[in-house]
Amino acid sequence: MTASNAIKIAPSILSADFAQLGVDVRAVDAAGADYIHIDVMDGHFVPNITIGPDVVKALRPHSDKVFDVHLMIAPVDPYIEAFANAGSDIITIHAEAGPHLHRSLQLIKSLGKKAGVSLNPSTPESVIEYVMDMVDLVLVMTVNPGFGGQKFIPSQLEKIKRIRKMIDATGRDIDLEVDGGVNPEIAPKVIAAGANVLVAGSATFKGGPSEYANNIKAIRGN
Amino acid sequence: MTASNAIKIAPSILSADFAQLGVDVRAVDAAGADYIHIDVMDGHFVPNITIGPDVVKALRPHSDKVFDVHLMIAPVDPYIEAFANAGSDIITIHAEAGPHLHRSLQLIKSLGKKAGVSLNPSTPESVIEYVMDMVDLVLVMTVNPGFGGQKFIPSQLEKIKRIRKMIDATGRDIDLEVDGGVNPEIAPKVIAAGANVLVAGSATFKGGPSEYANNIKAIRGN
Amino acid sequence: MTASNAIKIAPSILSADFAQLGVDVRAVDAAGADYIHIDVMDGHFVPNITIGPDVVKALRPHSDKVFDVHLMIAPVDPYIEAFANAGSDIITIHAEAGPHLHRSLQLIKSLGKKAGVSLNPSTPESVIEYVMDMVDLVLVMTVNPGFGGQKFIPSQLEKIKRIRKMIDATGRDIDLEVDGGVNPEIAPKVIAAGANVLVAGSATFKGGPSEYANNIKAIRGN
Amino acid sequence: MTASNAIKIAPSILSADFAQLGVDVRAVDAAGADYIHIDVMDGHFVPNITIGPDVVKALRPHSDKVFDVHLMIAPVDPYIEAFANAGSDIITIHAEAGPHLHRSLQLIKSLGKKAGVSLNPSTPESVIEYVMDMVDLVLVMTVNPGFGGQKFIPSQLEKIKRIRKMIDATGRDIDLEVDGGVNPEIAPKVIAAGANVLVAGSATFKGGPSEYANNIKAIRGN
Amino acid sequence: MTASNAIKIAPSILSADFAQLGVDVRAVDAAGADYIHIDVMDGHFVPNITIGPDVVKALRPHSDKVFDVHLMIAPVDPYIEAFANAGSDIITIHAEAGPHLHRSLQLIKSLGKKAGVSLNPSTPESVIEYVMDMVDLVLVMTVNPGFGGQKFIPSQLEKIKRIRKMIDATGRDIDLEVDGGVNPEIAPKVIAAGANVLVAGSATFKGGPSEYANNIKAIRGN
Amino acid sequence: MTASNAIKIAPSILSADFAQLGVDVRAVDAAGADYIHIDVMDGHFVPNITIGPDVVKALRPHSDKVFDVHLMIAPVDPYIEAFANAGSDIITIHAEAGPHLHRSLQLIKSLGKKAGVSLNPSTPESVIEYVMDMVDLVLVMTVNPGFGGQKFIPSQLEKIKRIRKMIDATGRDIDLEVDGGVNPEIAPKVIAAGANVLVAGSATFKGGPSEYANNIKAIRGN
Repeated sequence: MTASNAIKIAPSILSADFAQLGVDVRAVDAAGADYIHIDVMDGHFVPNITIGPDVVKALRPHSDKVFDVHLMIAPVDPYIEAFANAGSDIITIHAEAGPHLHRSLQLIKSLGKKAGVSLNPSTPESVIEYVMDMVDLVLVMTVNPGFGGQKFIPSQLEKIKRIRKMIDATGRDIDLEVDGGVNPEIAPKVIAAGANVLVAGSATFKGGPSEYANNIKAIRGN
Repeated sequence: MTASNAIKIAPSILSADFAQLGVDVRAVDAAGADYIHIDVMDGHFVPNITIGPDVVKALRPHSDKVFDVHLMIAPVDPYIEAFANAGSDIITIHAEAGPHLHRSLQLIKSLGKKAGVSLNPSTPESVIEYVMDMVDLVLVMTVNPGFGGQKFIPSQLEKIKRIRKMIDATGRDIDLEVDGGVNPEIAPKVIAAGANVLVAGSATFKGGPSEYANNIKAIRGN
Repeated sequence: MTASNAIKIAPSILSADFAQLGVDVRAVDAAGADYIHIDVMDGHFVPNITIGPDVVKALRPHSDKVFDVHLMIAPVDPYIEAFANAGSDIITIHAEAGPHLHRSLQLIKSLGKKAGVSLNPSTPESVIEYVMDMVDLVLVMTVNPGFGGQKFIPSQLEKIKRIRKMIDATGRDIDLEVDGGVNPEIAPKVIAAGANVLVAGSATFKGGPSEYANNIKAIRGN
Repeated sequence: MTASNAIKIAPSILSADFAQLGVDVRAVDAAGADYIHIDVMDGHFVPNITIGPDVVKALRPHSDKVFDVHLMIAPVDPYIEAFANAGSDIITIHAEAGPHLHRSLQLIKSLGKKAGVSLNPSTPESVIEYVMDMVDLVLVMTVNPGFGGQKFIPSQLEKIKRIRKMIDATGRDIDLEVDGGVNPEIAPKVIAAGANVLVAGSATFKGGPSEYANNIKAIRGN
Repeated sequence: MTASNAIKIAPSILSADFAQLGVDVRAVDAAGADYIHIDVMDGHFVPNITIGPDVVKALRPHSDKVFDVHLMIAPVDPYIEAFANAGSDIITIHAEAGPHLHRSLQLIKSLGKKAGVSLNPSTPESVIEYVMDMVDLVLVMTVNPGFGGQKFIPSQLEKIKRIRKMIDATGRDIDLEVDGGVNPEIAPKVIAAGANVLVAGSATFKGGPSEYANNIKAIRGN
Repeated sequence: MTASNAIKIAPSILSADFAQLGVDVRAVDAAGADYIHIDVMDGHFVPNITIGPDVVKALRPHSDKVFDVHLMIAPVDPYIEAFANAGSDIITIHAEAGPHLHRSLQLIKSLGKKAGVSLNPSTPESVIEYVMDMVDLVLVMTVNPGFGGQKFIPSQLEKIKRIRKMIDATGRDIDLEVDGGVNPEIAPKVIAAGANVLVAGSATFKGGPSEYANNIKAIRGN
């Protein structure tokens, strides 16, 4: 495994305190987070509304870590520029968000950002076959997107394995991220299946700030 | 003017620092805010996404003031219960958000919350004529909803006057709220037209925390 | 009041037994129903799905009474011909179902059917001002459409009065129908306000078939 | 073939008399139907409106056979609970009805019902690969959903074969149902391809009640 | 009547030859047209698709007359800039096209174009009351938008009269345009009601190029 | 390669002069075009509006060549008959335009037209596996649909190869068309991959009418 494939932990702000996101982002940054995973929901693509571009912008001064912005919205194209301008480093969109996945990824790249694509639990990996040459990250949802605190869906391990093969076949440096129900028991399984970026919400934030560093270490498995 | 019609100031969190909303809510509470105005946008009814029910819930412990939650979303019915449970005191929906305004207001009332209805700048007041017996607040948008920092639209003064008459004709205690471009110069005009609740974003937050109390006083006009 | 304005009772199949609609339609026909009111819902315009054109067609042989078909669907144009072919006599659409109310009414008339327009509780009567010269029926919803068994909304009495005036001003023979919470106590009020067709669901069907005739008489008030 | 894979016949109410559905359900129950197939259409996912949850509820007392409810509606999540409460045994949704197939199936299972997934004629079987561990029934549409009386689409035989293999690979007891144009000539072909539940509308109901038992036997092939 | 209120004739390209629009635009320009009325339809707001911004752009070099672009599309905001850049002089949008009429008009004005608002036959004039201070043109549809060759709807004369009063009350120079079924018999009626811009499709183009000038004179009534 | 698989060139009207489409169609017909490729966009399925059925109809008298009409619209079913009546020879729809691809193709065939299916760059070929027995043309988009002048997407070569195999496996005579960025350098690559119909917009029309024949020859590679 190359250095770029070292395991990265991406605490999800979905489990942070929305009244003090800046404080929480600084805390997980200091505790060893690699990416800050920001869950954007519009109440249409998923049945919940969370936060939008102004929140991303407000958080940007609080950390230099990679802002890994996960757009659970549809349509997505009208908002990509706002999230790019707000300070996102990676912008990840859903393969199911519309019929023009390639165009949306083109738009993200044209704005100088890394482009990710996410798959819902029921979505087969064939939907990303023709964009593997342009993505920087593939996100496998291991719960149904919308809410924190759900249980990992085991059938996704097979999907992770297959996408790992697809990534390796490209010879490109593409993150394989997993989001949903990841904790210290689940982490080794998804890593074994080929994931290298682990989103962790409740598993990061449980026990309060004094535990963040320990929690992240436990997920990372070292 | 009865006591219940005394001018109330409702700082809008749209101009707060989204990285420390709890701090900012406490600050405007202490500075004399009457209502905390919370702007919810879904990227569909309006061209911006802001915050959702989990943010409202996170803010609830930071102030006992009235949480005046303005839903710029459509459809609205699937989310009303989440915003009620999150600690909203008033839930305001848009008259233009769908064909069943009366049903949505019924739902808000059935959850024990105060029900508000908001009108976009081009919307005539006739759309609320048959819900005046059930609303607790009417919100006249004096800018197009979606973004802070816009300029007050003068044609809305006439609408405020007419809705004041409609409210007085009911004999009920209904707030008449104005949102958009309100500052110390505009405030006397909308008050003269009949408004009693003034949303103020940039006018409240400009100059930083040390100015909040002065800003609120200036808007209130005393 | 002219003969054409005599009170008509329109039992709603929403309160019939969906397992034996033919039997129930024959029963209310025999019990003195003037119109058979058929509630069509698509789960989009209203939050319930009831029945479609094939059910109307199946019921047609069971009664010669006026089939008064109330389409709570949107869009409506693609289905008007199917409901006309199924044997509807009056096809009533919602003023809120789309931006082309006049076109939909034209389509109904072009198929040789009577055309009705329905208003939700919050909808002002101004929306029908420019179609009064072409409609055969105006339906005032006195509950929010979607479910049977709801309570009459008193604010609609004023709307009924105003629409009665609009109808009388046309000099045309237009039914003014009321749907929602109508029972023997409410009936005199809506009749006094100007209605001449009363939809009655639970008030017709309560007590079982032996009571249908008495129930209808009680609503009719004679 | 295990007992659970014995051929089951599911008469579709789409070909019954909508004016006396209770009578017809009792008749096909007595005639040997295994499942009662109930076709729900909303006029949006498919270009027809049929019946909704209140009709299912009204039919429930008329048969103890499995109520096999096929939801040709989108979105589907808002109505799943109503159909569960109405007495459905199996709730089948369409893979094409939205981006969250796994979530909808989770919801059905959480309500204690069997969960089915249906595929339109053009839909490849890859869309269900990641839900095979949770479904109780797969429904292959062999006509385009919306209307009865259409002709069987032969290309679907290959899909049935492939899904039979996918089912067998799970080791789980999953019904493989076929809907569209099934009659005594087609039945042996779909059975040979691997189907074990055959929906039959016109083939069941033709000739009237006295023929139902013979019709069902003829389709079953014994 | 002031000079700015002199009658203007606006031939509609809907009745031109789409294979040689440049030729036809030059012909009606030479024949005395005041405005070139360009009908844009998207197949969603109206049940027809006509032409888009690239066609407007291609026509621009063929005439210096006012390009009066009528957008029968929804949503409209994403396309306003393209139509402005294509060379439109007036951009007219439909009041029914969405909940943010004021915002769309603001956008048109911000691009330096004249802003118009159009009303479908059933739409009451109250929907434009609060934008009268910003519009440059009001378009009353006297047929249902979508197709040429329809018959004038007489009920719209009253609407024209009322909007004439609303315009005069503003003291501003606002065109009052009429579109649908206008011919030499109808023209005097709509002019008497207060219209000053007459769209004419078939009435302009009938008889071929040699008649255009006569046709326009006949509609103008001089 | 059979005669039916000889290379055909299909100039796209997207690069023609929309002010004189008849002239341009005649010119490319005379210059050796095999098909006239007509790009229909509705501003909803793709972010541009181009032309509709009346334009197709107006062009029909100008050429006897195959009118190859590419519908970049959704929903598509309501417009298929209009495009058939307008004189289309091939009607191509998008696999992503809705859940009922098979039904739409059935409709096109029932109107006596050739049926095509188009795939966006990110769409896998599995979506057409079950309609290969009924299509007459498969169109691989090698740019994102919406605008002319874009650069060819190389990843589509693999998709072309795979679809060539799928076509050959059917033993049927199916056109394999490529649209997007095709020019004399790209043409040999897509032909080598298996394409036999090449859409060419700017590559056909560049240099003006005197160059059309040369341009077409250059693309054809002979």
